[in-house]
Amino acid sequence: MRDALVAAAFRLFLERGYEQTTVDDIVALAGVGRRSFFRYFPSKEDVVFPDHERCLADMTAFLAASDEGHEPVPRVCDAARLVLRMYAENPSFSVQRYRLTKQVPGLRAYELSVVWRYERALAEYLRGRFAGRPDGTLRADVIAAAVVAAHNNALRSWLRSDGKSDASTTVDHALGYVQSAFGAAPPAAPVQEHPGHPGHPEHPEDVVVVVSRRGAPLWRVVQEIETTLGRE
Amino acid sequence: MRDALVAAAFRLFLERGYEQTTVDDIVALAGVGRRSFFRYFPSKEDVVFPDHERCLADMTAFLAASDEGHEPVPRVCDAARLVLRMYAENPSFSVQRYRLTKQVPGLRAYELSVVWRYERALAEYLRGRFAGRPDGTLRADVIAAAVVAAHNNALRSWLRSDGKSDASTTVDHALGYVQSAFGAAPPAAPVQEHPGHPGHPEHPEDVVVVVSRRGAPLWRVVQEIETTLGRE
Repeated sequence: MRDALVAAAFRLFLERGYEQTTVDDIVALAGVGRRSFFRYFPSKEDVVFPDHERCLADMTAFLAASDEGHEPVPRVCDAARLVLRMYAENPSFSVQRYRLTKQVPGLRAYELSVVWRYERALAEYLRGRFAGRPDGTLRADVIAAAVVAAHNNALRSWLRSDGKSDASTTVDHALGYVQSAFGAAPPAAPVQEHPGHPGHPEHPEDVVVVVSRRGAPLWRVVQEIETTLGRE
Repeated sequence: MRDALVAAAFRLFLERGYEQTTVDDIVALAGVGRRSFFRYFPSKEDVVFPDHERCLADMTAFLAASDEGHEPVPRVCDAARLVLRMYAENPSFSVQRYRLTKQVPGLRAYELSVVWRYERALAEYLRGRFAGRPDGTLRADVIAAAVVAAHNNALRSWLRSDGKSDASTTVDHALGYVQSAFGAAPPAAPVQEHPGHPGHPEHPEDVVVVVSRRGAPLWRVVQEIETTLGRE
């Protein structure tokens, strides 16, 4: 019944436009009463995003199931991947909705409020993990926002490919950028020798020596280290 | 006239509540007609945030006036400071509005859309500056989101102090965290010798040598560099 309502709604949104479609039109096409619609969806906007509540609940449960052994930044990146997976489960529906949302300002506002709730869920988890550390809430808020922005950049790029590019590679790359800025977990396997830097022995206990001008901007120094470590 | 409408609106919002106040109530108290209200404000929500359009225009103009000599990350941090300055110009009004916005979900949604427009302005500027660089749009989106999150963290902390803490110190600290993560401008003055590291000569052309275990997480390496450079 819920799926039938979503299918009827999207058929009408695409045929007539979102604004021109009423809840009455949707229930007439689905062959159910108005009360059935409102049992599943508080408003017409909610039928456009039928899976976000479930996904938010999944994300909250996933973060609540974390323990001290989970590195906080990789953990929130994994939580963000749950959202991408929800989109990637149904590419044609996600792409249709993306086009619809771009055209209807009210839906964009709705989407912003959903994104905000995901961001708050990630930030709350990080605030807990960073509690008592200097700048704990600042770091939590900034990292949560960066993770969401990276996720959304990857999601939009996948949606613009009509769901044809590899969503998971794209999001891994985007989240990797955030992890490199805010703290990556120690690599699970020994890091491979970088071909351009034959001076370093191969076993994992070896050292990296970086020599840098004192006046150099920090980001250049970090770039240099990343290159040396072969993490580009 | 515009200021009188804002003053009348806030008096009524505080006395009766936002939802219980109509545009008719506001214009009656201000002694003007409904058309005057709508000449200044498209809706009742807009009177709550009377300065954001001007501030967005100021920010866009500020960013448009940038040249190649401006380091991109410090530049967007300066652009974000324009928003804080707008709040800090009128602490009691800002604190009143903060309390009101927390109580009215419709106003929070409005605020999210305003924040989104600031974030887009910063991201568009960065996308231009990073054009042609690998991951240009990804970096632009993530840094813009991080700057906005840091700014909002500082702003909320100032608002919770009832506008009594030092807004500009708080935001400098928060934005400094973002700059250290994503690239700081070269220091204006020679960096002072760090007392714990007597091995480095004092003139600005000197070098920093960092030795690190290859398996160390990148953030630890960065922390080590920051300590060595005395930039904590």
